[in-house]
Amino acid sequence: MHAPQSELPRRTAAIVAELRARAPRVHCITNAVAQAFTANMLLAAGAVPSMTIASDEVAAFTASAGALLVNLGTFDSERRQAAETAIAAATEKKIPWVLDPVFIDRSPGRAEFAKRLVARKPTAMRLNAAEFRALTGQAPESDALMRFARETGIVVGRTGETDRVTDGVRFAAIENGDPLMGRVTAMGCAASALAAACLAVENDALVATAAALLAFGVAGEIAAASASGPGTFAAAMLDALHNLTSKDILARARVT
Amino acid sequence: MHAPQSELPRRTAAIVAELRARAPRVHCITNAVAQAFTANMLLAAGAVPSMTIASDEVAAFTASAGALLVNLGTFDSERRQAAETAIAAATEKKIPWVLDPVFIDRSPGRAEFAKRLVARKPTAMRLNAAEFRALTGQAPESDALMRFARETGIVVGRTGETDRVTDGVRFAAIENGDPLMGRVTAMGCAASALAAACLAVENDALVATAAALLAFGVAGEIAAASASGPGTFAAAMLDALHNLTSKDILARARVT
Amino acid sequence: MHAPQSELPRRTAAIVAELRARAPRVHCITNAVAQAFTANMLLAAGAVPSMTIASDEVAAFTASAGALLVNLGTFDSERRQAAETAIAAATEKKIPWVLDPVFIDRSPGRAEFAKRLVARKPTAMRLNAAEFRALTGQAPESDALMRFARETGIVVGRTGETDRVTDGVRFAAIENGDPLMGRVTAMGCAASALAAACLAVENDALVATAAALLAFGVAGEIAAASASGPGTFAAAMLDALHNLTSKDILARARVT
Repeated sequence: MHAPQSELPRRTAAIVAELRARAPRVHCITNAVAQAFTANMLLAAGAVPSMTIASDEVAAFTASAGALLVNLGTFDSERRQAAETAIAAATEKKIPWVLDPVFIDRSPGRAEFAKRLVARKPTAMRLNAAEFRALTGQAPESDALMRFARETGIVVGRTGETDRVTDGVRFAAIENGDPLMGRVTAMGCAASALAAACLAVENDALVATAAALLAFGVAGEIAAASASGPGTFAAAMLDALHNLTSKDILARARVT
Repeated sequence: MHAPQSELPRRTAAIVAELRARAPRVHCITNAVAQAFTANMLLAAGAVPSMTIASDEVAAFTASAGALLVNLGTFDSERRQAAETAIAAATEKKIPWVLDPVFIDRSPGRAEFAKRLVARKPTAMRLNAAEFRALTGQAPESDALMRFARETGIVVGRTGETDRVTDGVRFAAIENGDPLMGRVTAMGCAASALAAACLAVENDALVATAAALLAFGVAGEIAAASASGPGTFAAAMLDALHNLTSKDILARARVT
Repeated sequence: MHAPQSELPRRTAAIVAELRARAPRVHCITNAVAQAFTANMLLAAGAVPSMTIASDEVAAFTASAGALLVNLGTFDSERRQAAETAIAAATEKKIPWVLDPVFIDRSPGRAEFAKRLVARKPTAMRLNAAEFRALTGQAPESDALMRFARETGIVVGRTGETDRVTDGVRFAAIENGDPLMGRVTAMGCAASALAAACLAVENDALVATAAALLAFGVAGEIAAASASGPGTFAAAMLDALHNLTSKDILARARVT
């Protein structure tokens, strides 16, 4: 980041504290596979999740939330319509929203829909390397990420072994995390939800998104230390995020 | 209760034993976020859950069940129709049913639908303070709960730091539970499902509902003792309910 | 099996290793209750799950997968159509697929639909005794299972205290497992998904199906040893499958 990288851990600790103090509402349009784990991750962080996709109430839930998540996994027509409605409500009320274009590399129709949503200007987008490639046709290198962020005005968080976050000007690389995170379904979806929660309490979208990924990675490392496989790891992640301290974040952060 | 309060723990222990002995079927119209945890809670208690919302089979599942749960979370049109069909089947066969008006304080349309369902006379209703207020326009105090129960003929279980259960005449306050219960999604939904299971084996609806909340609260306390956060707590709740003994209930119950 | 029964444990160990080495994609049309646990079980085994039921992308996901699972739990119209589309894609591309006719004993319409899908010739079918009876009108004895498999060309895996697997000629009985497996929702669904994963890496459908049930049963036994109830058991099953060794399988297999 332009600001010294050493600033991110400290700001992350402050954002984690804010989540617990302010308990922001986060409305999630997300896939059925991810709903329960995502809701539990938000609760573990101190936020208040809601998940309805019913067309006649999604606007009210979004308008009364602090942030919105739109996740494209298991993307049926009802969720697609709910996403459109929720985004309209978020845009009108200037509520930050996060796009998670799950698996667009596996489905051309879904990739098309993701491109339409990118044009609606999400505050931030979290995705993996294959999804970035499907969205932009470019290799998910730092230069391409920065160019995309600059051109669209969207903060991009590309997760992987190293997470890379950029708003087109500033850039952070986060090396926390654990391989078990790839062995639990909806782990990426939950990270995106946490980014939405952080955006509800922090106006600097680059900092909010990077803080979410840093807190998530540190929680993953702590969880892995006590887990004996992906089942106990998933539960331990929720515990770790719930119990995360400033000291944990400052001691473990590997940010460049 | 009119009956000495000391009766509830003993009757709860008997109902918990009945659930294991009789394995009642409980059909659940519930939200996608809650389905798996609710099914697991019912299985942990000894009941047999089913969850379909398909319009052409929901009547058959309900008619062959011992109780029905109707939960309004993530309330899309298909679930709304499934609820109507299931309630008609339950009413015809005199099968007890529980209404859980999740988040009606966040969605006026959902509150309207809840009012319509209240007119269909659920056997019991479990809800929190904000939901009671959205439903009745009244503060969720004991007097208002009793009046509502008396006027509607519905047993009301209002959960919170202290759970209050009334049929309009009798009244029980239950102080068991743990704050971690508020950090796991669908915990209230699972409590409502357990109330439905208890209604399948106990005709006194006030006793059945109070027994469910007491067993649930005691299991929560036991689980909290071994949990290190909300993730391990959710698993420990299922273990605790599965392993719950009469001795646990009698020793820990705080009922007035 | 015609081949000595002692061959199955060794082949199971090889298939478990293949899953980890090849990470096959498995597309699942499954019920909302089962989706997350099924996805996590596939990830724990080394496979890559996808779960969409959206009609305009289910064909692309299936065609790019190594195997397909069709599970009839919570069977709404959208899932029914997704199943038809996915089966057509699998048939065209000669991708193996598994049918899991959940709860067809509770719903005549679902049983009818299951019969239609049987006529589409799944590679294998996993079901319990009541479901076999609802499908065929016959007691789920070994003779009936073999006759059904022979007449339809479908490998049948009937799970229960003893699992029985047959292709109409060969037959294996597997006695591994633990009673806690019946206290976790979607455990059978997850076993069916694992069978699909094994079919993606092993052409002999009888061996693939039996290997899935053997690996699953052994993982269940290992998990039960460390669990204190159904909640911790569910997490421990995922851990056990993730950590399963050839030695575990060879030492614990009870196959006749």
